[in-house]
Amino acid sequence: MDHSRRIGALRRKLRQAGLSGLLVTHLPDLRYLSGFTGSSAALAITRFKAQLFTDGRYKSQAADEVKAARVEIVSSSPAVAAVQWLAVQPKVDSAGFDPAHTTVAELVRFKSNLPGRLRKSFLVPLEAPLVEPLRLIKDEDELAIMTEAALLGCRLFDHMLGFIRPGIKEIEVAAELEHQARLWGAEGMSFETIVASGARSALPHGRATTLALPRRGFLTLDFGVILKGYCSDMTRTVYFGKPKAEERHAYQAVLEAQEAGVAAVAAGVTCGEVDEAARSILRREGLAEAFSHSTGHGVGLEIHETPRIGAGQATRLQPGMVVTIEPGIYLAGKFGIRIEDMVAVTRTLGQILTPSPKALIEL
Amino acid sequence: MDHSRRIGALRRKLRQAGLSGLLVTHLPDLRYLSGFTGSSAALAITRFKAQLFTDGRYKSQAADEVKAARVEIVSSSPAVAAVQWLAVQPKVDSAGFDPAHTTVAELVRFKSNLPGRLRKSFLVPLEAPLVEPLRLIKDEDELAIMTEAALLGCRLFDHMLGFIRPGIKEIEVAAELEHQARLWGAEGMSFETIVASGARSALPHGRATTLALPRRGFLTLDFGVILKGYCSDMTRTVYFGKPKAEERHAYQAVLEAQEAGVAAVAAGVTCGEVDEAARSILRREGLAEAFSHSTGHGVGLEIHETPRIGAGQATRLQPGMVVTIEPGIYLAGKFGIRIEDMVAVTRTLGQILTPSPKALIEL
Repeated sequence: MDHSRRIGALRRKLRQAGLSGLLVTHLPDLRYLSGFTGSSAALAITRFKAQLFTDGRYKSQAADEVKAARVEIVSSSPAVAAVQWLAVQPKVDSAGFDPAHTTVAELVRFKSNLPGRLRKSFLVPLEAPLVEPLRLIKDEDELAIMTEAALLGCRLFDHMLGFIRPGIKEIEVAAELEHQARLWGAEGMSFETIVASGARSALPHGRATTLALPRRGFLTLDFGVILKGYCSDMTRTVYFGKPKAEERHAYQAVLEAQEAGVAAVAAGVTCGEVDEAARSILRREGLAEAFSHSTGHGVGLEIHETPRIGAGQATRLQPGMVVTIEPGIYLAGKFGIRIEDMVAVTRTLGQILTPSPKALIEL
Repeated sequence: MDHSRRIGALRRKLRQAGLSGLLVTHLPDLRYLSGFTGSSAALAITRFKAQLFTDGRYKSQAADEVKAARVEIVSSSPAVAAVQWLAVQPKVDSAGFDPAHTTVAELVRFKSNLPGRLRKSFLVPLEAPLVEPLRLIKDEDELAIMTEAALLGCRLFDHMLGFIRPGIKEIEVAAELEHQARLWGAEGMSFETIVASGARSALPHGRATTLALPRRGFLTLDFGVILKGYCSDMTRTVYFGKPKAEERHAYQAVLEAQEAGVAAVAAGVTCGEVDEAARSILRREGLAEAFSHSTGHGVGLEIHETPRIGAGQATRLQPGMVVTIEPGIYLAGKFGIRIEDMVAVTRTLGQILTPSPKALIEL
């Protein structure tokens, strides 16, 4: 990871925003810029310097991980230390902070630790995020890791096809999936594994329960792994037994919508257009009401990143973005179906990172 | 869970704070007060009413879970809807919010959604948390769940004693533990499982790696499960092979410190006194420097709650608190040892909730 390049790109944005200093406290931003993976730190950036503050627990780890910033070990709050450091840097007359990741209480504390003359105007809330637009566009190193994470997800899905059968409890399915993920090197799961079977498949966020998988009906598996900090995300819906005509038809509609969404992904296309490509298929099938969420979202160091692939979203896709395409339908008391891939935006089109089969699997 | 009683107790605190309304957005607080377990909601409380705002995904779940408040499904931000609802309640001239769990950006958004005359003074940052002091004292229902969660932890430790052996990778240990936890009903782990063996046991937060357990040396397991929303937390350190005299001596010192800490737990005692009871033993053994963290912390719906059992802490223990007692020593490059129990404060003394053996286990 070329952290110096990333910090350089951030400095250009900082200058454009008319700021001479920046406080970074959101940990995924901080990891992106510096490589630090600990749970307590703050990063201060000026036009010429970058300094990371953390506590004694992370002394050796920070020395190993952080090359593009100086490391300072502090015994009090790293963020307060970073603010105080910024305040005494030459030619730094203001420092931006991220209002979306700074609590009201933290801001009060930062200000009370500044000299009186700086309390009112030194800290400036950013009008727009500065690090997020950089993180949005994955570089080659990031794409390599995310490809690996996505493929690990596919390997897990394949493994689960040999494990699931009617009568097994949903939580046993989640347990097996997470166990195998660990054994294959995942640092963790990127969100709470969704195992929703039978009528429960109609819950978009069905946590695994102690209910047994049915002899007949859908099973939705939505899960992701974390590999080197990056999240994967995929969903497949399979069927136990022989689907009824209505169920098969609904599955085909979701699959067609999902493939239309993937096919719409291309550099320069708006997120709203991708959403509409998927949504229009379900609308045509009379399933518009049953598709109650957005078509997808960005993914990376966090499981939900910008852009949002939702109705009317004007953000244009750019090469290097990685998004999910995951239309679904939910018919309360009956069944639900969702199919999700991770898709990387290239110079021309969208490249699927999760090549697991999508045709209806009957078990 | 008697949510009406909890909301009643909160109203008394609200009155004492001179407020006529309260916005609750921190999800563990909201769950404590209403029973709602979803991931997106806000709760508004006045002297006579309580109303929970959530989105369409949680319609049926909120109806099932929430009895002590009215539920309103909204299509925009639940927190903004709650603020707007508070602003039009009769006799509500101000509403408190929690500055430690409200971002600067959220506060700006709340204010911009209020009528002009209310923007400046309607929302008041709480000077001290109002819900936290209630959550601190666990009621009988909570103690029953936490006892169950802690015992599940002990059962897992016992299971792991039959699984661990030299040559197995740390991540395989974590995978087995988490898998079995799921099968025995855990909703998840309450934090990233720590499996730190050999020289890595000297890392207080050693994530499981692909390193193999050593033929000779310590292994620290620090883990917790989530059961009905409540966290357990326990640590045991075992030894592979025959410990050297120095290692055995160090283990005995930590064990003595841990038991002194537990013995010091009693209603009315300060947290600083409990910390000192454990710390003084390690100081006597010349290990004061190696004990680089606090003795313990409160635990409940969150893995880290108040009070902090640290040096000089003046907070007095009260019946119903549940805290961890977890002294440890960390000798970089050599080894580390930590022993941790969950302890419930009763009217008289401290009752251990994690009765797994603590005498040094040699495997």
